[in-house]
Amino acid sequence: MDIEKFSSMDFGEFVDVFGNVIERCPLIAAAVWSQQPFSDLEDLEKHFFAFIDALPQSGQEGILRCHLDLAGSELQRPLTAKSQREQSGAGLTSLGADERLRLVELNAQYRARFGFPFVLAARFSDRTAVPRELARRLLCPPAQELRTALGEVKKIGSLRLADLLRADPAKL
Amino acid sequence: MDIEKFSSMDFGEFVDVFGNVIERCPLIAAAVWSQQPFSDLEDLEKHFFAFIDALPQSGQEGILRCHLDLAGSELQRPLTAKSQREQSGAGLTSLGADERLRLVELNAQYRARFGFPFVLAARFSDRTAVPRELARRLLCPPAQELRTALGEVKKIGSLRLADLLRADPAKL
Repeated sequence: MDIEKFSSMDFGEFVDVFGNVIERCPLIAAAVWSQQPFSDLEDLEKHFFAFIDALPQSGQEGILRCHLDLAGSELQRPLTAKSQREQSGAGLTSLGADERLRLVELNAQYRARFGFPFVLAARFSDRTAVPRELARRLLCPPAQELRTALGEVKKIGSLRLADLLRADPAKL
Repeated sequence: MDIEKFSSMDFGEFVDVFGNVIERCPLIAAAVWSQQPFSDLEDLEKHFFAFIDALPQSGQEGILRCHLDLAGSELQRPLTAKSQREQSGAGLTSLGADERLRLVELNAQYRARFGFPFVLAARFSDRTAVPRELARRLLCPPAQELRTALGEVKKIGSLRLADLLRADPAKL
């Protein structure tokens, strides 16, 4: 998709295409549309990130709470297609019973401590690194952990934006 | 549902139940969860509205852009179940061809002028009042119209919250 294409989309189309750059937060894409036109991918990305950074803390935590647990036990809420692909690529959808139980326990501790789920750009990780990173971040101070987690949200968003801009619009 | 019930929900359950109080904006419910416990319906509602009021203008417009046109022509994006019921109650899902065409034209003018779709609490309206109100609001100054439209978002949110709190949680 070239830059002219996404810089001239009407807001309905823009939200349809970019609504899940930040997981389950079409509001953010819908707000970013106000900043059209965009000069390039970096410019578009910058507006997504600036919106996140300007939210009050409850809103930033809210973004994290729109994510599901990595390799989560919450099977009643299905993963979005993008999230499914990302977790599958990291081997998280085919864990053994012990690995899965360990992740479920760590996720529960993390949620209880911080009030939001553990978020990690799964495409940069794998099934052995995820529980190690989760255990490490579980010990971080809450303010630092919020910044780390939002950094992961931005990495995920960057990857999704790059995928979308590489994609054939007819296949979106 | 009693007040203890929704004041002690974990964030996953809270977002599942209240995620569409503001149409397609689970981020807002997820942010409001930070304010637990809630003393009553008014208290809960107050936190939803305060979050909306504190957003930058692009975010407030973003909320509106997460709504579809009333009696809209955008059939590729299905209405949420709640929105369907509200529009159906106002007779907007059974318009004649002429009435529908008139609304489609007015909606298009409105979107072109303000950069967001016409939002109205359909349950307080009917099929003759909607086009009249749309034509009237189309002439308002943009800053005033943004305030009016957010007022309608809040009316819709109020009605949905009241419905949810009256509902049997087993049926949600």
